[in-house]
Amino acid sequence: MKQAATTLTIRTAGRGFTEITGELARFVAASGIADGLLSLLCRHTSASLLIQENAAPAVRADLAAWFDRLAPEGAPYAHDDEGPDDMPAHLRTALTGVTLAIPVMAGRMRLGTWQGVYLAEHRTAPHRREVAVHLIGA
Amino acid sequence: MKQAATTLTIRTAGRGFTEITGELARFVAASGIADGLLSLLCRHTSASLLIQENAAPAVRADLAAWFDRLAPEGAPYAHDDEGPDDMPAHLRTALTGVTLAIPVMAGRMRLGTWQGVYLAEHRTAPHRREVAVHLIGA
Amino acid sequence: MKQAATTLTIRTAGRGFTEITGELARFVAASGIADGLLSLLCRHTSASLLIQENAAPAVRADLAAWFDRLAPEGAPYAHDDEGPDDMPAHLRTALTGVTLAIPVMAGRMRLGTWQGVYLAEHRTAPHRREVAVHLIGA
Repeated sequence: MKQAATTLTIRTAGRGFTEITGELARFVAASGIADGLLSLLCRHTSASLLIQENAAPAVRADLAAWFDRLAPEGAPYAHDDEGPDDMPAHLRTALTGVTLAIPVMAGRMRLGTWQGVYLAEHRTAPHRREVAVHLIGA
Repeated sequence: MKQAATTLTIRTAGRGFTEITGELARFVAASGIADGLLSLLCRHTSASLLIQENAAPAVRADLAAWFDRLAPEGAPYAHDDEGPDDMPAHLRTALTGVTLAIPVMAGRMRLGTWQGVYLAEHRTAPHRREVAVHLIGA
Repeated sequence: MKQAATTLTIRTAGRGFTEITGELARFVAASGIADGLLSLLCRHTSASLLIQENAAPAVRADLAAWFDRLAPEGAPYAHDDEGPDDMPAHLRTALTGVTLAIPVMAGRMRLGTWQGVYLAEHRTAPHRREVAVHLIGA
């Protein structure tokens, strides 16, 4: 049984989704661990992780519009000293979550055919984001 | 330290919840691993996993009605080529998530008395769904 | 490779957030496991776990107000025999989730600078809550 760990750094272009499936697949392949568990933690409170449809870009556009409806920028928030996009970003992060646990088998994540792993940037401006990655197995 | 893995196949009857706690408990018991961590990944983008109340069926009816309010079928979505229930299904999947991590002790998942593990089918039609299951421990 | 496990007991003062980052950090430090994976399960269906901003208390006030909007007490629920705050509590638990997986490195959780781990109590009255904690690593 062994472990491997790394930190992915993602430079986002502002609000939107950045797929990290490829980086994760390369990390798993390079680890020498065939079977195990891959865990991810997004180290921020205004960006999150989700597993979603990797084919139709319209799905991600609809997701973004839905975030806008559920946690809108215009609402009266107590916390607004970092700008009108900050509190909605915290809420969208609470909605989608910051940790994932993905089983690995035969050197590959057990994602379904249409699943991709995404970092969701919820702030308007570009940011540098970190995802802590951990793999344990044999 | 050792590992065990399997894939649960669930044939859903369309929108609704299928409890998988029993199958998971049998897998844990059969593994010979007494203490460890059980991880689950639903391999789909329009079905999800959640841990919820296992006693009152009214809770699941209210949950379904709440999904309808938060991610309604009638809204104008960009992604609608797979039918009016498809994009709401993606949103409800993002809301509840597709991975779970459940500690195991003395051969049993450490769920609370009233907790059950459910696959939530978000499409209208019946589907065949897969959940990747991984257990590591001793 | 080794494991450690415990149960945190949290006495909540009713609806609101209780930070448990300190207890978790002490558990990790005392385990003798430097690198690994820490997993948490909230053993309830009306309280949940989330990782959120640990500095500005206004963020948590806004989160609570947002829970009220997304899963309000006044809505007509089928499940209401345990009081008007019970079904909203189940919905808010489904929204935020009950499991977390946090990578550990050099004896510390890999949380970001502004991240804290919180138990969210969703019932109006004070409750005694349990969080199952598991750590695996070396």
